[in-house]
Amino acid sequence: MGNDKGFTLWFTGLSGAGKTTISELVQKELADRRNRLEILDGDIIRENLSKGLGFSKEDRDTNVRRIAFVADLLSRNGVPVITAAISPYREIRDEARENMGDRFIEVFVKASVEVCAERDVKGLYEKAFKGEIKEFTGVSDPYEAPSSPEIVLKTEEHEPEESARIVLRRLEEMGLLYAEMKA
Amino acid sequence: MGNDKGFTLWFTGLSGAGKTTISELVQKELADRRNRLEILDGDIIRENLSKGLGFSKEDRDTNVRRIAFVADLLSRNGVPVITAAISPYREIRDEARENMGDRFIEVFVKASVEVCAERDVKGLYEKAFKGEIKEFTGVSDPYEAPSSPEIVLKTEEHEPEESARIVLRRLEEMGLLYAEMKA
Repeated sequence: MGNDKGFTLWFTGLSGAGKTTISELVQKELADRRNRLEILDGDIIRENLSKGLGFSKEDRDTNVRRIAFVADLLSRNGVPVITAAISPYREIRDEARENMGDRFIEVFVKASVEVCAERDVKGLYEKAFKGEIKEFTGVSDPYEAPSSPEIVLKTEEHEPEESARIVLRRLEEMGLLYAEMKA
Repeated sequence: MGNDKGFTLWFTGLSGAGKTTISELVQKELADRRNRLEILDGDIIRENLSKGLGFSKEDRDTNVRRIAFVADLLSRNGVPVITAAISPYREIRDEARENMGDRFIEVFVKASVEVCAERDVKGLYEKAFKGEIKEFTGVSDPYEAPSSPEIVLKTEEHEPEESARIVLRRLEEMGLLYAEMKA
């Protein structure tokens, strides 16, 4: 890292928008610069911290609050973190922002439902449209886009590699990561 | 810290044995040496990561596994952690040990049920003996003492301050903390 400041890149966006893919590219790039970054991926957290929770608003809020709790613990100790869960509700993301202050960097991973459904990486949209999955964000459950995110990644226009570069450049600008040449 | 090695001091012991008190003394001492340590206290974790879980063996195991997951995340990033939950079952503690390898330091905070019940800091033993609290560790629920903990704190014999000193001395011996004079 440029210094010991921890931060949380809070990715938010629909299923299939590119959260996990871009996270992993950012992580790989940081590893090449001898830095470390933890990804708190939605699926990993559901498995390890939120088993038993469903997808009602209440359960989603609990899940997202747990992610925020762990991201706060890590980032306040100087560890860079990406959270990569849909985190559909603005109120809960704003709560995380309030707790983490300027360590919180909201990254809107932006793609329309139509494009995400076309990609349908996990085959979930098909099931959601058939009604086989209930409470599916963007289809049968709400997604509240960020009102003023620090970073927007337009994944319909950019390849994941370009999105990862946008994130890294922004971290450099924010003084959270040295430019590659100085590393 | 003496270096950037993270570790987890895994405190285990009955309610009232002294886990939280000693944790906080260790934390304070480290803060005086300009080091940081996170305490994952049983109550804090129940509030933030395990709301809704009860005290059956299954729920306790889930709770302790969550603590271990977070302790692993922190300690593998160089953050010193104390977990201070009863964590009554040997199998789950051993699972944590396996995941964290030599970052895992088991600390048996040792006091008999009788002494803990006499102290009864939170008034819980009285209720447990009356049957008002079910599944109370040491009274109506099992506690499996560690078979070969790295540190044993005999809190019937030592004041909390002395126990904290034992922990700090052990960390120095293990090369995880510089002796005070060198700090």
